[in-house]
Amino acid sequence: MATKQTIDFYFDLTSPYSYVAAEQIEAIAQAGNRTVNYKPTLLGFVFKSTGNSAPMMNPAKGKYSIKDFPRTARFYGLELNWPKQFPINATVASRAILKLKATQPEKVGDFVRALYRAYFVTGGDITSEEGVKAVADAMGLDGAALAAANNDEAIKEQMKAAVQESIDIGMFGAPYCVVDGEAFWGQDRLDQLRKWVVEGPF
Amino acid sequence: MATKQTIDFYFDLTSPYSYVAAEQIEAIAQAGNRTVNYKPTLLGFVFKSTGNSAPMMNPAKGKYSIKDFPRTARFYGLELNWPKQFPINATVASRAILKLKATQPEKVGDFVRALYRAYFVTGGDITSEEGVKAVADAMGLDGAALAAANNDEAIKEQMKAAVQESIDIGMFGAPYCVVDGEAFWGQDRLDQLRKWVVEGPF
Repeated sequence: MATKQTIDFYFDLTSPYSYVAAEQIEAIAQAGNRTVNYKPTLLGFVFKSTGNSAPMMNPAKGKYSIKDFPRTARFYGLELNWPKQFPINATVASRAILKLKATQPEKVGDFVRALYRAYFVTGGDITSEEGVKAVADAMGLDGAALAAANNDEAIKEQMKAAVQESIDIGMFGAPYCVVDGEAFWGQDRLDQLRKWVVEGPF
Repeated sequence: MATKQTIDFYFDLTSPYSYVAAEQIEAIAQAGNRTVNYKPTLLGFVFKSTGNSAPMMNPAKGKYSIKDFPRTARFYGLELNWPKQFPINATVASRAILKLKATQPEKVGDFVRALYRAYFVTGGDITSEEGVKAVADAMGLDGAALAAANNDEAIKEQMKAAVQESIDIGMFGAPYCVVDGEAFWGQDRLDQLRKWVVEGPF
């Protein structure tokens, strides 16, 4: 293949394991001489379409997960403070991400991480236009323009297509990475993803 | 606490990720100055009780998992050849393990791994008394006695209690490790388990 393959990073901003993965994915891409294509999706639709469900939906798994989310974050040196509201509908923020991809693609990774930190670390609101604007403004982006993407018909259609794409490529949970056609589901498959991009297929 | 804590390793012989974990757990225990308490259980009952389900039960997750099982094995330098029959009912082999725990506890880990290799590497049958006897005999154990545990009323009761215990302690999938009261679900949490037993709680 002539062009350098990206790592397609499918995520939902409400996913704690995707937060942990988002903090690691750039270093992995760099080690493997790849770039990251940040692909926001909405797990509600993914779960509905695939029949899969979130860990928190099962009582026994939920009881475990509520301890495992922050422990996994700590394991990687990250903070995770359980949000007041969980899960959230990340549509507003996801549309803002799509808007930024079209205007300042080089800023997208940092914006995604800023949104995750607002939600999972500092207790911010990323479900409203005001909340998304605040996160964007704080990092020097045009928050008003990004928040306004929430009411942009073209962006709305792009978001629908993004969700459908995530389902079509086989996603059933988050994060879900695809590189060279190979899928890696879960933050806990990043070690395998790293080996893949650094050493090659195995 | 005065006595050295064990790592309680709950597993089902039909679980591919438990096979991979069984190949790693002794080194982790040794690094943390612990011993492993091998605790066979039966996921069918665990899933029924908790409402959780096997990865292969969901079409999208199953399609991914059938590739992820052997890739994960390869990642750790292990072979995994997809069995002709999957899943299996591991009752006969699990009762043999309980019998061996009572008679030659120091052999249990190797017997568990021999059963896993028979099932996931060399295509052996571990669902029948004959199959379990063959695996045991091949490693110099009294295969006939271990296979006969399948019809031992006391062992049958122990197996029921073992399954109930796995449910009671919160298990919802395999492998499920408990150390110092802390639970680690999945082969992909062994890194966290290692950190826990080597460096302490985090």
